[in-house]
Parts: sequence; structure tokens; C-alpha cells
Amino acid sequence: MTTTPTRGLTPVLDTGRTMLGPALRDAVNSHLGPEMSRIAHYHFGWADAEGRPTGTWGGKMLRPTLALLSARAAGATDAEGLPAALAVELVHNFSLLHDDIMDADETRRGRATAWTVFGVPSAILAGDAMVTAATSVLLAAPAAGATSATVSLMTATQRMIDGQTSDVEFERRDDVTLGECLRMAGDKTGALLGCACALGAELVGAERSLIEGLDAFGAHIGLAFQLADDLLGIWGDPDRSGKQVGADLRVRKKSLPVVAALNSPGADELRALYLGPEPMTERTVQRVTELVERAGGRDWAQDEAARQIAAAEQRITATGTPDDVLGELLEVAGFIVGRQL
Amino acid sequence: MTTTPTRGLTPVLDTGRTMLGPALRDAVNSHLGPEMSRIAHYHFGWADAEGRPTGTWGGKMLRPTLALLSARAAGATDAEGLPAALAVELVHNFSLLHDDIMDADETRRGRATAWTVFGVPSAILAGDAMVTAATSVLLAAPAAGATSATVSLMTATQRMIDGQTSDVEFERRDDVTLGECLRMAGDKTGALLGCACALGAELVGAERSLIEGLDAFGAHIGLAFQLADDLLGIWGDPDRSGKQVGADLRVRKKSLPVVAALNSPGADELRALYLGPEPMTERTVQRVTELVERAGGRDWAQDEAARQIAAAEQRITATGTPDDVLGELLEVAGFIVGRQL
Repeated sequence: MTTTPTRGLTPVLDTGRTMLGPALRDAVNSHLGPEMSRIAHYHFGWADAEGRPTGTWGGKMLRPTLALLSARAAGATDAEGLPAALAVELVHNFSLLHDDIMDADETRRGRATAWTVFGVPSAILAGDAMVTAATSVLLAAPAAGATSATVSLMTATQRMIDGQTSDVEFERRDDVTLGECLRMAGDKTGALLGCACALGAELVGAERSLIEGLDAFGAHIGLAFQLADDLLGIWGDPDRSGKQVGADLRVRKKSLPVVAALNSPGADELRALYLGPEPMTERTVQRVTELVERAGGRDWAQDEAARQIAAAEQRITATGTPDDVLGELLEVAGFIVGRQL
Repeated sequence: MTTTPTRGLTPVLDTGRTMLGPALRDAVNSHLGPEMSRIAHYHFGWADAEGRPTGTWGGKMLRPTLALLSARAAGATDAEGLPAALAVELVHNFSLLHDDIMDADETRRGRATAWTVFGVPSAILAGDAMVTAATSVLLAAPAAGATSATVSLMTATQRMIDGQTSDVEFERRDDVTLGECLRMAGDKTGALLGCACALGAELVGAERSLIEGLDAFGAHIGLAFQLADDLLGIWGDPDRSGKQVGADLRVRKKSLPVVAALNSPGADELRALYLGPEPMTERTVQRVTELVERAGGRDWAQDEAARQIAAAEQRITATGTPDDVLGELLEVAGFIVGRQL
């Protein structure tokens, strides 16, 4: 997961964040040592680099809100689903801390990344502390499905790591297929989002069919998000303050629309420009943008996002989730993919 | 954990390694993706950088052998204790992969470290994949104590991370007390070794008193090991191929004998040389070595190691562990601390 469109939160996200922020802080304080807590408080946006409170709850809490809704889809309370919500947010932020180091990203959410403030060793350790705490929080839950939920969370985490690995590996390869690229996005983005949508239900001991339906819903939403994010990384969006036009092309990223175009018939000029050794000038970025569009990369990505959203809706509807919870799940999913569902 | 004295393995370690090597490889292959597996095979010493088998089983498998013995101390078989053994070795190697990056160490066990071969991003991810797999392996065990053992392993992992954090933090501080330094060593080295000595027993559902006795035994052995390792880092040992004389002093490491000496009365010259801004010449290293010894740092560390070993023996004897298993636990512990127990 990289950027998410920044704009006003929806009602359910607003409520979720208010409830989840303090609970997450309590979990961090009780599971991490003082030094690791300090880095976590900074990373989550609760404190500045000197440890002074910022007075805000930081991130949008998309995944933990989905985890709470999945517990409600299984007829449980938010309190019962809470450990799942906290665990999934800890795993997500473990990945952000390590991703920022791997990508040498210096800013996140408009603030200096943790490794630039505290150094690489401390930021590696803070990520390690978070993934360790995620397991502890989940296993401490007095719930029927604590062990089973932890197994699922670790499976999703392992897939997320595999996806990140493939992403790193693809940078060095010129023959990445669209199938490989979709699998990578499913691992890197879809697995944890699917897990977030199912983990609360699994924790409270829901039936396997509901857990699977919720997981599939989230996985499709994750892929739709990745496609939308990749489109923004090329064409941008004036309504959003996220990615700049051409950002992904400048670094020759093998994003989904680009890989779709590279594998189309007649992509010789695109392949030469994008995979060749010449510097990526602004003029080349413009030409590549045109060529990706002409080769059908943009249309394919938009259509594929629509297909993923349709599949998500079909899977969630089939679960028989009560209308009020269904509406809230669709509200959050719509926020993630940047359109109303 | 840094270096361990290299010399011939004891009989129980030799047997342990032959059994554990293939089982660990199977766990790696089934829980890690192909790319992460490749790095793990290299890191464990099973393959070279191109993936060609080396024909050896790599490390000494100290911790997993202890975990198997702890299952036997609880009356269970090696097969029943195996998931605990694999999980603890995965956590240990997760920490090695990340430590080598943090310390910028270029060699381990006489080979290039993983990050120098595969790059920092891949080595971070490989560590992440191992700690995630550790939880999965343990929770998949068909055993009464799988959940409880996983909670204990995560608690020990969190303490190991805290210890590592303190170690990094101490480098920047001139006022580290001996108490802080002992606590750091207990977290960094003692926690996981204590866990290794108890995890097999916990996994098979042993009584709490046995688990606690085994854990305390391992924690004391861990501290004795750290003290022995710190002594080697200053005075070396011609019989061992591990650390070089003065290695820790050259990098101004706040090891236990040094901190003991720094906090002794009349350590003004030592403090000025060790905490001051002047370059650490070979002549200064020699003078610091003398001053640490004169201030009682060497004697204190030797006495403290003996006290920790005595405490370990007292705790393990009190558990009522059968003589044959007791003998093997003491054999491995003796190997770790570099003397016969």
C-alpha cells in the first residue's frame, strides 16, 4: 500500500478513528518498550520527534475499521473485534516502517519518515517490535478464534512480504508478465486488506463461509485500490493531493498499467524507452505516458478496477451480511478505491 | 548474540544438528516464498549465493537443540518438541539478519552477510519472513501449549528487540550504569535463550513450575555467555578463532566489563580515553585494556559469569529434570559458556 487519496473521512471512518486511536496507543504502550514506543508514537503521528503530543490521531485507520466491521458482520461487538483491528494496523505499520527504509522514502503523510528521524537501525527495530506486538495482541484476546485468526494474519503477512519481494525483484527484470504483476499486487496489497476484512469475524469464531467471503471482498478491493493508485501514479488527479503526474514513470516503476502496455503487441517504442538505459527526461515521461495509453494500459487498468469492484460487491452480497454493516463496509471500500460503491 | 566460540560440537549438539537441519529446511521451504527461501538457504549456510548446495547444515543449532531437550525434560518426544525448536531458530536468525544490517557487519560465520549479497531491502524482508514463519510453525503444532508457547516466544522476541534497542541507545550515552547494562544483556541475550530452554516444555503442556525453572536456567546461561563473549571481546582467547583481542574496545563498545570499570571509583583516565573524542589508536586500546583490568572490570565479569552459571545449575537441578536430560542440557549450556558444567 502506498498513498491513499486524502480527503474528508466518511462517517464510519471518522467514528472508527476516534475509537481506535486511543486503543492503539494503549496497545503500543503496553506491548512495546519505552524507546520503541517513542518511535511508534512519532510514526503514528501522535507525537513529534521530541515526543511532544501533536493532538491528533494520525492515520485513517482503514484496515482496523474494516476489522471491526467484520466482527459486526459476524454479529459481535466492536469490543470483541478490537484485538483484530489493532493487530492488523500493527502489521500494516510494520510494513510501512520497513518499506520506507527499503524505498529510501523521506516523507510519509507529509512528515519525515521514522528512519530519517531515528536512524535505520531504530526504524528496523520499531517495525520488528510492531509485528511481534501484533501476534501478542491477537493471542491475548479472550475469543474462540484467537489462534485461528493469528494463523490467518501471519499467512497474510507472509504474502505481503512475498509481494514486496517480487516488487523489488521486478525492478531488475524486463520480462515481467501481467499475470505476475497481478499476483504481486494481490500479495502486496490484497492479502492484508482481505485479512483486515475477515479478521474480526474469524476472531469471534464466525463460520468459514462468512470469513472466506469477507476475505475475498477485501482482496478484490485491495486490487482495485492498487489499480487506482497505479493510474494516479501516471495520470495523477487534480482533485487529490496524493501522487504527482508521472511520478511512477520517472522511477520506471513496473506498475500494472505499464506492464499491461509493455506486454501489448506493438509496444516496441515503449519497451525501448522504458526498459532502455537512457535517462528518463520529462519529455520521455510525456512520450511514455502517451504510449502506455495508446497501448491500452489505461483502459485495461480502469476496466480491471471496475471488474475487481464488481467481484468485491458480488462476494460481500453473497455473505448475507446485514444491510447496515454491509452499507458501512461498502462505504469504507468506496473510500479506499476512490469512488462511491 | 554475537560470536560463539567455534570448536568441535558436543555429542548432543552433533545429533541435534543432523536432525534439525533437514527439518528447518523443510519449514523454510513450506513457509517462505521462493525468493525469501533462496536468501534463507544462503543465510543458513545450506547454499551459496547462486543457490548451489554447500553440502553442510550451517549453524550449531544451539537454541533448537535446547528446545528439543526441554520437551524431553517434560517427558515428550523430540518430534513433539520440534515446532518449538524450529520457531526459536527462526526467531534467532531473524535477529541475526537484521542485526547484521544495523551493525553494518559484512561477515558472519566466515561468509559474506546476506545484506551484502542480496541488498538491504531483501535482507530486511528475509528477516521479516522468518519471524512471521516462526509464529506460523508454532501455531500449526498439534500440541496443548501451542498458543501459550507462541505468546512466550513473542514476549521473548519483544525483549530481545528492547535489548537491541538499548544497545544502540547506549552507544550514544556516557552514563550507562552496570544495572542498565545487565538488564540490556538479559533482554538481548538472556530472554531468547531462556525461551529456547523452556519452549519445548511449554509447547507440550508441561507444568508452569518446570517451564519457569527451564526458562530461568536458560536466562542465566545467556547472561554467562554474554559475559564470556564480552571478556573475549577485550582479552581474546588464543584457543578460539572467534573475536580478536581488543575488538570491542576499538569500536568503544559499552560491554559489561567496560561498564563495570567505567562505574568504578578512580576511573577518570579510563573515562577520558573511552568516552572522549580522540581517535582510538592501538596504543589507546592497550592502555584501556590495562585500565579496565585495573578498575576490576575483568575480575567482576569473571565472577559474575561464575555466579550466573551457579544460579543456572541451581535452577535446573530444582526442576527435578531426569538425569539423562539434565546431563544433556548441562552439556549444551557448557558449550555455550565455553566451559564444562
